[in-house]
Amino acid sequence: MSVIAELRKTVAALHAELTRYQLVAWTSGNVSARVPGQELMVIKPSGVSYDDLAAENMIVCDLDGVVVEGDLSPSSDTAAHAYVYRAMPEVGGVVHTHSTYATAWAARGEAIACHLTAQADEFGGEIPIGPFALIGGDDIGKGIVETLTGHRSPAVLMRNHGVFTIGKDARAAVKAAVMCEDVARTAHLARVLGQPLPMAQADVDSLYDRYQNVYGQAGR
Amino acid sequence: MSVIAELRKTVAALHAELTRYQLVAWTSGNVSARVPGQELMVIKPSGVSYDDLAAENMIVCDLDGVVVEGDLSPSSDTAAHAYVYRAMPEVGGVVHTHSTYATAWAARGEAIACHLTAQADEFGGEIPIGPFALIGGDDIGKGIVETLTGHRSPAVLMRNHGVFTIGKDARAAVKAAVMCEDVARTAHLARVLGQPLPMAQADVDSLYDRYQNVYGQAGR
Amino acid sequence: MSVIAELRKTVAALHAELTRYQLVAWTSGNVSARVPGQELMVIKPSGVSYDDLAAENMIVCDLDGVVVEGDLSPSSDTAAHAYVYRAMPEVGGVVHTHSTYATAWAARGEAIACHLTAQADEFGGEIPIGPFALIGGDDIGKGIVETLTGHRSPAVLMRNHGVFTIGKDARAAVKAAVMCEDVARTAHLARVLGQPLPMAQADVDSLYDRYQNVYGQAGR
Amino acid sequence: MSVIAELRKTVAALHAELTRYQLVAWTSGNVSARVPGQELMVIKPSGVSYDDLAAENMIVCDLDGVVVEGDLSPSSDTAAHAYVYRAMPEVGGVVHTHSTYATAWAARGEAIACHLTAQADEFGGEIPIGPFALIGGDDIGKGIVETLTGHRSPAVLMRNHGVFTIGKDARAAVKAAVMCEDVARTAHLARVLGQPLPMAQADVDSLYDRYQNVYGQAGR
Repeated sequence: MSVIAELRKTVAALHAELTRYQLVAWTSGNVSARVPGQELMVIKPSGVSYDDLAAENMIVCDLDGVVVEGDLSPSSDTAAHAYVYRAMPEVGGVVHTHSTYATAWAARGEAIACHLTAQADEFGGEIPIGPFALIGGDDIGKGIVETLTGHRSPAVLMRNHGVFTIGKDARAAVKAAVMCEDVARTAHLARVLGQPLPMAQADVDSLYDRYQNVYGQAGR
Repeated sequence: MSVIAELRKTVAALHAELTRYQLVAWTSGNVSARVPGQELMVIKPSGVSYDDLAAENMIVCDLDGVVVEGDLSPSSDTAAHAYVYRAMPEVGGVVHTHSTYATAWAARGEAIACHLTAQADEFGGEIPIGPFALIGGDDIGKGIVETLTGHRSPAVLMRNHGVFTIGKDARAAVKAAVMCEDVARTAHLARVLGQPLPMAQADVDSLYDRYQNVYGQAGR
Repeated sequence: MSVIAELRKTVAALHAELTRYQLVAWTSGNVSARVPGQELMVIKPSGVSYDDLAAENMIVCDLDGVVVEGDLSPSSDTAAHAYVYRAMPEVGGVVHTHSTYATAWAARGEAIACHLTAQADEFGGEIPIGPFALIGGDDIGKGIVETLTGHRSPAVLMRNHGVFTIGKDARAAVKAAVMCEDVARTAHLARVLGQPLPMAQADVDSLYDRYQNVYGQAGR
Repeated sequence: MSVIAELRKTVAALHAELTRYQLVAWTSGNVSARVPGQELMVIKPSGVSYDDLAAENMIVCDLDGVVVEGDLSPSSDTAAHAYVYRAMPEVGGVVHTHSTYATAWAARGEAIACHLTAQADEFGGEIPIGPFALIGGDDIGKGIVETLTGHRSPAVLMRNHGVFTIGKDARAAVKAAVMCEDVARTAHLARVLGQPLPMAQADVDSLYDRYQNVYGQAGR
């Protein structure tokens, strides 16, 4: 199978994680993957139900968001994904959701401070807030890139909007989206009845370092 | 297949979206569709479990709610659906639920102000409150029509009751019901820990305009 | 099939509604049915997983809770079910759960006031609080019967414990358990951000009367 | 089947309870079992999806956490599980999760006081808080053992981290993890709108004693 055929399959299949973890309603979230070594990306078609996604109806675009393969229009968030791939060469996957708890933090424009080991592991500290930006041009993409450049977190909470996550590949970006909602929910609930206890910065650093370098299976 | 046979199938199947998104408990929500070009509608039978719905047991009524085809009684909300079809010729589908978060706003008689891009997209601003009205006559239908006429929102929160949504067809009304609960939940959670940040009216207008005219696949 | 064989099947199957609506965790809820015209009831075995329930392992007890058919011990709540059947001849089904939101009201000893049409329909007003009572004798049964006798509500919130519901048959009691949690959840959320609007007693009465006498399919 | 083969199957299968009750996100929880009569344990591999778990990819370690059988790395929490087995010979199963509500209590460092009969049954009183501890050495294990030794509760809320539970076997530890989240959720909700009513210590004691000695099927 060609690299693009493989990525079509992977990107279609990864959307099932968005529904499994209830990060999306109707057609409100999307996954993309960079095609390594080519100026191309694979992304969800716009307004198509998750049940109907398949390798065949994924869209291949160039990194300006122009469709190269596919009969349908690409996700209305294509410009944002494309901007990220152009600006951040180390990024191989991008995910966008309006997952409930994370978006509630985004609606208040409030970053999620780090009070959980799981957040330290995956995000290395706070999950930051990005600017308010309108869809349709480069503003969302710019907001994502400016917020995440030089930041440990692979997730940004775009103000009054929702979540964008990045990763070395699409699977890593999906994982970040799942963990972002999980952490946002726990942090919300902790705050409802009081204040979470602080974690020392050295402990956050140590957890982040270990998780990025030791966790999981070597070579995966 | 005749138009009515097709709509029986569509309406029966769309109830699966109400259960998938947990908008209903037991038999507490219903979907209907107008039969285009005829003074008829297709609607759920009353008090029948979602698992038991099929094209065959959907009820066909005229727009006064009188049964034309079907062995069972139609939904107890038939009068409200029928009133909407009589008063709003552009409406092709109606949905009713008591979805949890939206109904909590309805219990307080509190409209959901627009602080989310997803709400601007689908609802074009706030989701309004309709009056308290008793079931069994035209009062609920009147309350829906008076609230939604001239309003961008396809959803109304009926006081102390629940949600009614409208759409160009049944699928669009179901989508509005799904998005109404999604937005109601996020708005609730945002408010629990503070105040969501305001969105400029021009931004809300711009998002609404784009979503209604650009999003999804052309001709769908 | 004999009446008892039929009820074994029905009672086993109805437990799937408890899991579907997430009213139970592990083995923490149970359904029973009176055998009409006999001094017998059919009930869940104690500590058996919902996945493993089948007509064959349901327990038949007399109305003192003594096992008549079945190799396993009956539910540890058998004494409470039996007491209800002895004291309330019109009751044909009993359900017990620790469903989350309803139990949270029970933990505070706070009745759920009626601010929703769905609550007026099914419960005819508030859902009352029953006393704290220890398991193992007649105290729980007495508390249920004393609270629900002469009350419209088929559900009682036993203090610091959970929910018991009654119905003309097991299916009706399961429905009451599902609707009790649904109403408890919506009422909780409504209260978190303010006060639900009052409903006039005459409206509550009217809704209750209509729902008990008109809703659903005649003869069902 | 050998004891180890049997335990590989059991431990793999029990992870399905963690996903069924939504106690875990992505790969964030794990189950282990002691191999009776041998200085060995069976545990989940690190960073492997729950869908991909099978008897064949479970890891067998000695009680210092050194892999004895298996091609993958064991769970990154292996050291904590191993410490518990070394220090508490009566423990046959250990479970770790970051289940949402329990972890919210852990983030505040707040023990869950006992206001529910279900909590008295399973936990015999409050669910305690353990210390903050970094992963990678014996600190988490020590914190678990010091908190649970001489305590009735089979669950400990590790500060800013999550839940560890113990049991006579892996199934019992999984049950404790399920009930811990259930109780944590109900207790959270009860507190959101006020204060749960106190339970007398004698009642808590009586419920705990009965549940440990009478509930379920004899010999199970």
